[in-house]
Amino acid sequence: MTFASKTAFPAQGEIAFVGAGPGDPGLLTLHAVTALQNADVVLHDRLVSPEILALAAPQAQLIYAGKEGFGPSTTQVDINASMVAHAHAGKAVVRLKAGDPTIYGRLDEEIDAAEAAGLSWQIVPGITAASVAVAAIGQSLTKRNRNAAVQFLTAHDMQGFADHDWRRLAQNGSVAAIYMGKKAARFLQGRLLMHGADAGTPVTVIENASRPEQRILATTLGTFATDIQNAELTGPAITFLGLAPRAAEATLAQQETA
Amino acid sequence: MTFASKTAFPAQGEIAFVGAGPGDPGLLTLHAVTALQNADVVLHDRLVSPEILALAAPQAQLIYAGKEGFGPSTTQVDINASMVAHAHAGKAVVRLKAGDPTIYGRLDEEIDAAEAAGLSWQIVPGITAASVAVAAIGQSLTKRNRNAAVQFLTAHDMQGFADHDWRRLAQNGSVAAIYMGKKAARFLQGRLLMHGADAGTPVTVIENASRPEQRILATTLGTFATDIQNAELTGPAITFLGLAPRAAEATLAQQETA
Repeated sequence: MTFASKTAFPAQGEIAFVGAGPGDPGLLTLHAVTALQNADVVLHDRLVSPEILALAAPQAQLIYAGKEGFGPSTTQVDINASMVAHAHAGKAVVRLKAGDPTIYGRLDEEIDAAEAAGLSWQIVPGITAASVAVAAIGQSLTKRNRNAAVQFLTAHDMQGFADHDWRRLAQNGSVAAIYMGKKAARFLQGRLLMHGADAGTPVTVIENASRPEQRILATTLGTFATDIQNAELTGPAITFLGLAPRAAEATLAQQETA
Repeated sequence: MTFASKTAFPAQGEIAFVGAGPGDPGLLTLHAVTALQNADVVLHDRLVSPEILALAAPQAQLIYAGKEGFGPSTTQVDINASMVAHAHAGKAVVRLKAGDPTIYGRLDEEIDAAEAAGLSWQIVPGITAASVAVAAIGQSLTKRNRNAAVQFLTAHDMQGFADHDWRRLAQNGSVAAIYMGKKAARFLQGRLLMHGADAGTPVTVIENASRPEQRILATTLGTFATDIQNAELTGPAITFLGLAPRAAEATLAQQETA
């Protein structure tokens, strides 16, 4: 496993796990573009945009390996088998994942499959949705005198809704980026309020971050679950606990001093 | 503030806050490269590599705006003033920051200065050090059945050593990426052990992630502070609490089952 090799990659029979970022092709890294251009086979997630797939070499075989949280999906076993079979056949394989493959990407299971098959692999990181979503609202994930730490968390895991340190998250000044939080909005809201969070805590939902259809929903913890339901979000969304869009924050600060 | 505009950016008199990633030019985004090529002025951090600065247009003015934690530095006031003066003079300004500008980048202070001067700005996210460092050790920041949340935290803030939820971090299965942790290693070790962390908890330090001189130090919480001192790290480092390099982890698992 050498990262960022100077030679063409992925090589024949090798697998590159590549982060595609949140949707805008301009957020691909140069390494990701190189990998797409060298790939014989591109196994891609549902959330990878057509504009990004268009960067693959014309002769590359594009294979849909989509999974949806609550819908029809390709199983992880099928994805692993397809990836391994193509690499064993001597193809240069790109496993293209939305965002950054190391964040909620089930990357370890796919590396396990590659290693069990004796295949070499490498990882090309991508821009994760939290980074682009926070930029879209003009905020930072960390800020002096506000938060020296930021949490990335998911609202549901294999057992159902995920459990977290709600008491800490409920504290004033906490900042968290919540992945896959749409269906769990009412659960999140309930847990946080139960642990003492202020109903006025800012909550901002960014749907389709970096894509032309990006939408920003600025709300508060008290009305978050109802607002997210009414907004009828259909695309991938990131929810920030403890962050309002920069413009809204300026307005709030003015009201407080008025 | 429109993100990822299709027209050339930054425009004349505009400021783009651009993430340069951790050092390897191949980890720049396509948008970052475009911004560098369009810039009249590039104000860059100390940690931005020469190979990345070489991507700026030949006629661009490169201005060093370095800050070191414990060394000589350009003050934030000077950086803000230079950035604003160049944009007011009608230059297309890129403020180039190592990593992702929204993570420990003091971005908000610079946006405040831009807005106070009536200037328009936008943010281009970058690959943060945690993403590339975790890829270098073949691990994920999150993993099913291990951690549904990951914390990014800094070891020191404006008041000195930063305070965190040590009890939570000390729990088995916690994963955290610690920025700027070299000088605070003994403090971190002490706080975590005091709150019940196992001395055998894996700790991995990645120095100069993604650069040719990258080094990986795999250790445990019990010996971490001494090991990091003996390693005489000189470059930027990311410390992972709760993660061992993938190969080491496989060896540990074999020992446990032997």
